[in-house]
Amino acid sequence: MNAWKEYQEKNKDRFLQELLELLKIPSVSARSEHRNDMVKCAEAVRDHLLAAGATSATLYPTEGHPVVYGERITDPSKPTVLVYGHYDVQPADPLELWNSGPFEPVIKDGKIFARGACDDKGQFFMHVKALEMMVKTDSLPTNIKFLIEGEEEVGSPNLATFVKANKSLLAADVILISDTAMISMDIPSLDIGVRGLSYIEVEVTGPNRDLHSGVYGGAVGNPITILAKMIASLHDENNRVTVPGFYDDVVVVSAGERKLMAEAPFDEQEYKKDLGVKALWGEKGYTTNERTGIRPTLELNGIWGGYTGEGAKTVLPSKAFAKISCRLVPNQNSEKITKLLIDHLHSIAPESVTLKAELHHGGEPYMTPIDSDGYRAAAKAIETTFGKTPIPVRGGGSIPICSLFEQELGVKIVFMGFGLDSDNLHSPNEKYELFNYYKGIETIPYFHQNFAGNGKA
Amino acid sequence: MNAWKEYQEKNKDRFLQELLELLKIPSVSARSEHRNDMVKCAEAVRDHLLAAGATSATLYPTEGHPVVYGERITDPSKPTVLVYGHYDVQPADPLELWNSGPFEPVIKDGKIFARGACDDKGQFFMHVKALEMMVKTDSLPTNIKFLIEGEEEVGSPNLATFVKANKSLLAADVILISDTAMISMDIPSLDIGVRGLSYIEVEVTGPNRDLHSGVYGGAVGNPITILAKMIASLHDENNRVTVPGFYDDVVVVSAGERKLMAEAPFDEQEYKKDLGVKALWGEKGYTTNERTGIRPTLELNGIWGGYTGEGAKTVLPSKAFAKISCRLVPNQNSEKITKLLIDHLHSIAPESVTLKAELHHGGEPYMTPIDSDGYRAAAKAIETTFGKTPIPVRGGGSIPICSLFEQELGVKIVFMGFGLDSDNLHSPNEKYELFNYYKGIETIPYFHQNFAGNGKA
Repeated sequence: MNAWKEYQEKNKDRFLQELLELLKIPSVSARSEHRNDMVKCAEAVRDHLLAAGATSATLYPTEGHPVVYGERITDPSKPTVLVYGHYDVQPADPLELWNSGPFEPVIKDGKIFARGACDDKGQFFMHVKALEMMVKTDSLPTNIKFLIEGEEEVGSPNLATFVKANKSLLAADVILISDTAMISMDIPSLDIGVRGLSYIEVEVTGPNRDLHSGVYGGAVGNPITILAKMIASLHDENNRVTVPGFYDDVVVVSAGERKLMAEAPFDEQEYKKDLGVKALWGEKGYTTNERTGIRPTLELNGIWGGYTGEGAKTVLPSKAFAKISCRLVPNQNSEKITKLLIDHLHSIAPESVTLKAELHHGGEPYMTPIDSDGYRAAAKAIETTFGKTPIPVRGGGSIPICSLFEQELGVKIVFMGFGLDSDNLHSPNEKYELFNYYKGIETIPYFHQNFAGNGKA
Repeated sequence: MNAWKEYQEKNKDRFLQELLELLKIPSVSARSEHRNDMVKCAEAVRDHLLAAGATSATLYPTEGHPVVYGERITDPSKPTVLVYGHYDVQPADPLELWNSGPFEPVIKDGKIFARGACDDKGQFFMHVKALEMMVKTDSLPTNIKFLIEGEEEVGSPNLATFVKANKSLLAADVILISDTAMISMDIPSLDIGVRGLSYIEVEVTGPNRDLHSGVYGGAVGNPITILAKMIASLHDENNRVTVPGFYDDVVVVSAGERKLMAEAPFDEQEYKKDLGVKALWGEKGYTTNERTGIRPTLELNGIWGGYTGEGAKTVLPSKAFAKISCRLVPNQNSEKITKLLIDHLHSIAPESVTLKAELHHGGEPYMTPIDSDGYRAAAKAIETTFGKTPIPVRGGGSIPICSLFEQELGVKIVFMGFGLDSDNLHSPNEKYELFNYYKGIETIPYFHQNFAGNGKA
């Protein structure tokens, strides 16, 4: 459809400028000091939706940050696509490792550098611009709904309540999400699953106050040493997680599917070179792509305790802390794994310390069938704009709300992401390539076209 | 000598006020932002020495913070006492655990609360006030020299150079140090040894940048997990240090001495209650007092890596860090232990990470003989003012410069400390009891009197 291409070409500079403005808002959901920025960002999303052609768009308050909902219902008899995305971003620290301000977006070498450039402002905003393209060229083939939340990066603690209370508002025939990555722009792929999550925080308390490590050292349990011993014991010599029952519910992937996965292009030398490591690490008996795709993991996301400043302080600290998260695969259950992990930590904590372990957030794993209408509409759209059939792959990340969506709304989810693994999500110097941004905007209308033809209508 | 008692009684409020003023100066040697406070504190010490009766007192610049030297030579034929102390203090963090500002001293329940109240401003200042008492009552029985340095809490990196270059200036018959503790005011004791120290910092680097823990987790070595495994392996199941060669040079303490040590009053239930722990921890086969006195230890003083802020961040960090220190006993050598520890850490670091391990500072263990003139002069002074013979005990802490003093100046060191283990050294709410402060000032002149009688003169 040349009208789309023509409209995009004529407006591409503005499409970019609008995204850059959105990236300037520091919408860090984890930090309470950004509460006002969250509202400001939600309002900007609402205004963009209305400007793009949504007939209504509203902020819905929640116990946490607001949800933005907008829609354009062209004809109730046509199929409805619900676009889900999130306007919140991860914290930007460590700030000193950024080459430019995380909320001062810059374009360099054809890439947009900013926190949220890819995850997920750059990606959900493609859908807003695709809506504009279709509306302005009078060619929107579906009904379209937008649900853009502000708490994805903290586990969507309030979205389930919103979804359950607004099932008819959100009723749709498919849910479309751009919050994942492709293998590369030369090797397009579509994620067919996201992993679940169980994210906890642990506090180990030894003595009731910081002590002089000379006067008390050697005689009193040091919470850092003890926390380290506990963490060390969570993986065995084959790097398998030792929490009893951890693997019990894991669906065994067939030799056939593993063989298919192994055919996806992957260059281990290139992977190691990109990360600057001499050797990889992971569960024995599985390849790198299997380790990040079909296997559950347990990772340390943070640790702290004692003196962490300049120079030396001879202290035996009172407390040590860690943030630990597990990625889960079908059919693991987040609540069950969280309980197993916390119970196990309590069981291995020695008597010389007390342990507090609490859930930050969780989410269930999700798989999408490749023979669904939605998946086929996405694959065909990619074929049209990339000239290649996308490879179905398992994604390593998590989108906590997916399984609830399917349960409450009764429809399948399609992950049509245009990011790259090298986009530095959750890291300093997050980026999104201009090519990918524009390619996404170009591809999305074809999804709607295909789904309107192939869907229930 | 009633003139001393009378002088002290008349001036006790001023003695306290002067100390409080000194405690207001945040002389934190580890932090470069306190460089000017260090000079200010050194100048205050110099002025106090001159006011107390030192005939000269000077700041000597070093590569780091200045050394204060002062003296009063009454008669070259009399024995000379060199008083060593330090005007620098430990960092005050974690600030939020202080009940009052660390550099805003307050008196509560007969205790002075402030960083440095006991370690070591409150203790070395007793010697300045004792000098004043003896000079003003015209009864100083010895020559007296003061060496008050500003880098003890960072391992005295520049004091050795100063001592070696000023051997005749510092020439003395005994070195007297108040920087240790007594069992209690009811059970006076004298330390007969301090432990040595080897303090290192470790940096473990995995991938060259922070990664998304979903996209890369399970496939890339996590530096926190790997650092935890390394730390965990440093103690075996009997809590013995596993660094090869660590115990090779440790002097085996005789059954007789261990029996004597076991006779010193110690209430394990009280000790646990004070620290708020259900169980103690330490090397199998040794008592608590042995673990902190005659055995070497390895303690974690700090750890950090990844996301340590509010909420959750799903990051697989690039780096993790730890501060580790060993306390050493006779005849361990700090340099040798540091090398053994760093070599061992390199040997156990897996290929998926790179390790950097560097020395912060070290110091040798030191023992003082109980049949020396100095020890006997101190014991007799304690008998006079406490009415009890002090128990000789092994201290757990370190005063890095001790072994160098003996080597360069050829004299013995006497540790006459008036602190308590419960003084929260290096911790929030450091304190020094008024009773101990005044008791120290009262006792010190008797040391000089005894040493003048018993010493070489």
